[in-house]
Amino acid sequence: AINQTRLLEHLNAMADIGMTPKGGSNRQALTDEDKRGRQLFLDWSSQIGGKVRRDQMGNLFVRWPGQDNTCPAILMSSHLDTQPTGGHYDGVYGVLAALEVMTTLREAGITTRHPLEIAVWTNEEGARFAPAMMGSGVFSGALDQASMHQSADKSGITVYDALMETAQWGDIPCRPFPIAAALELHIEQGPILENQYRDIGIVTGVQGMNWFDVTLTGETTHAGPTPMTMRRDPVAALAPLLSSLYALAARHGEQSRLTIGDIKTLPGARNTVPAQVIFSVDLRHPEQSALETMTAEFQSICAECHGAVAVSVTPVWHSPAVQFNPQCIDAITRASQQLGYTAQPIVSGAGHDSVYLSRVAPVGMIFIPCKDGISHNELEYASPEQLTKGANVLLHAVLRLAAP
Amino acid sequence: AINQTRLLEHLNAMADIGMTPKGGSNRQALTDEDKRGRQLFLDWSSQIGGKVRRDQMGNLFVRWPGQDNTCPAILMSSHLDTQPTGGHYDGVYGVLAALEVMTTLREAGITTRHPLEIAVWTNEEGARFAPAMMGSGVFSGALDQASMHQSADKSGITVYDALMETAQWGDIPCRPFPIAAALELHIEQGPILENQYRDIGIVTGVQGMNWFDVTLTGETTHAGPTPMTMRRDPVAALAPLLSSLYALAARHGEQSRLTIGDIKTLPGARNTVPAQVIFSVDLRHPEQSALETMTAEFQSICAECHGAVAVSVTPVWHSPAVQFNPQCIDAITRASQQLGYTAQPIVSGAGHDSVYLSRVAPVGMIFIPCKDGISHNELEYASPEQLTKGANVLLHAVLRLAAP
Ligand SMILES: NC(=O)NCCC(=O)O
Ligand SMILES: NC(=O)NCCC(=O)O
Repeated sequence: AINQTRLLEHLNAMADIGMTPKGGSNRQALTDEDKRGRQLFLDWSSQIGGKVRRDQMGNLFVRWPGQDNTCPAILMSSHLDTQPTGGHYDGVYGVLAALEVMTTLREAGITTRHPLEIAVWTNEEGARFAPAMMGSGVFSGALDQASMHQSADKSGITVYDALMETAQWGDIPCRPFPIAAALELHIEQGPILENQYRDIGIVTGVQGMNWFDVTLTGETTHAGPTPMTMRRDPVAALAPLLSSLYALAARHGEQSRLTIGDIKTLPGARNTVPAQVIFSVDLRHPEQSALETMTAEFQSICAECHGAVAVSVTPVWHSPAVQFNPQCIDAITRASQQLGYTAQPIVSGAGHDSVYLSRVAPVGMIFIPCKDGISHNELEYASPEQLTKGANVLLHAVLRLAAP
Repeated sequence: AINQTRLLEHLNAMADIGMTPKGGSNRQALTDEDKRGRQLFLDWSSQIGGKVRRDQMGNLFVRWPGQDNTCPAILMSSHLDTQPTGGHYDGVYGVLAALEVMTTLREAGITTRHPLEIAVWTNEEGARFAPAMMGSGVFSGALDQASMHQSADKSGITVYDALMETAQWGDIPCRPFPIAAALELHIEQGPILENQYRDIGIVTGVQGMNWFDVTLTGETTHAGPTPMTMRRDPVAALAPLLSSLYALAARHGEQSRLTIGDIKTLPGARNTVPAQVIFSVDLRHPEQSALETMTAEFQSICAECHGAVAVSVTPVWHSPAVQFNPQCIDAITRASQQLGYTAQPIVSGAGHDSVYLSRVAPVGMIFIPCKDGISHNELEYASPEQLTKGANVLLHAVLRLAAP
């Protein structure tokens, strides 16, 4: 069993970096805070003899040899970057629980047959740089490294610049190496496990998600003299468009998701009708075919919104629904049973690095409940008991896969 | 008659400062560009013997003595700051036409009985710092200097800091001095004069305007796992609220104006339901009582929008409808007649420094048409002939009031 006190200490020390006024975490990808969080993790890893590599997307890999180093590694991975007003667990828990599993194995003097490796993926959140799951996406070949290096944040800083500025540019190319199995432990970020009183979610797959930017283009004019009927006001067009989009989500039932996380107006002056309204759209559905229908309907709602304002839709990212590997699912199921924890299969509503990783390795994920299903929020919370149970399942599933 | 070539040269030279990629002007209040524009104006003024004073709001005053310097001055004034994507004429024309009037009088060897003075008011636009017409507002005692110094732009820089950084903090207190009459020449910024084929608008007053910030507060949560029905999504509340607001404007007929110039979401991440949507509201009506009714209805629409999201409304600025001075209106009317220009009375839809100035001096305004009524836009345009006619009316109205 892992050491609960040490796991909590590590989580707290990490939460001290980039602490928000409301006590959450703001360590967005490749900021100074992210750099400090990564360094802390690397310090802890070195203390237990891990060997560090870093690739050209800033992904970190820490390896411990096995009894047979011709075997491919068993990987435990997640991310350390957060949302702008994020919590203490999303991603961070997966990385620090993996560290705790390694520390526990070292203390117990256990060397598995396979080498073990922890990976920290760059920019999983996608909050500063789109798309999400960027580091694992390039690693798996799903995303193009050169274009990702050019992805810019709101102030125009590119991933490439940020990698250089924070010294996260590594000396190995970002491409897959042989991996026997990869596990990721994560908070659910939704309400299901808590509502069903389960300790553990055995993740069978991840829902599909499509991201877009919608731009409504009108024309700036003065707020005072210009009659309402002579305006080409993109905000006036926004009102019915938003209503149609929320109605679309409702029509597709309770498994559909529509999120408009960012809206901005240009030039954004009080006494000027804006030239443009730009907003983001995040569409999700666990069934790939349903997601495709939703997406087609979304496109035609936008195409039909014309009149005085021009509408354009830019696809930003597509991540199809995925299914995880049966052997990994089995190892997690047996580990949960062995420990006597309540568990159930679950589909992940959030994207995770495991989505991309599943293109190049057998992958499984373990969920634990989080309070009120709240995530991407400073109030994100999981209890010490819940955190410990998840880490114990990770430990025992790894032991099954890595064959001691 | 004024010198059209010189007036156009001055307008072009000013437009070169803070030129936008689309050929408009971006000299927002108390930026480096605004500073350079002001310096250019001061250089030209000094060349014709003007004496400069600057007050603690950065308002500029340039004076030329009269035959009888115990008489209060006749003031010509407007502003040099622009919208972020502004044109070449809004404000700038009024200042440079005043300079042209002075230059013409000097060349002709005319000294009026009253001293003449040109004022350049700070932050008329209100685009960078709210409210608009700030310099003239403090001058007239309508706005409090200490609170205006603390007004901050989007990046947190205050008016006070910006005054210091751009060396626009002056050595005289910002308070009214005796003014015999004050005239402001401006483009209409609306379509009426153009549609009626008039050279000149004789402005009888300015419509009332009320500014607000509306904040919708929900709760951040993850875009993926959180069911739509479990969200407190402020964007979902925005859709019906926007519709009700545009319906309100429509209900109040063609003289009413409603503008939502700025919308933002916090934290503004694609895959997080926002905690807050914040937007600006600009309500206008030429009749003060109608504006008050609109405002009351706006407040109750916001108050009724509840449910999962909390709504709060912050008043930002109120500027009641004003009537201008009969003697000034008369001088403008006679000057137009004398020059043989077509003219008509008009109510200004835009706020102007003259609104506040009318609290401490007899005030009148002259409008010229602008193309398609477009303003607060890089395409803002008035023809050389239109510009010249307006400046000639200013010249002759000033001569009438300043009694040569
Ligand atoms: N786990 C997580 O928050 N991932 C971010 C990608 C997504 O939006 O689902
Ligand atoms: N003239 C002008 O653009 N004034 C700005 C104040 C307003 O919004 O009316």
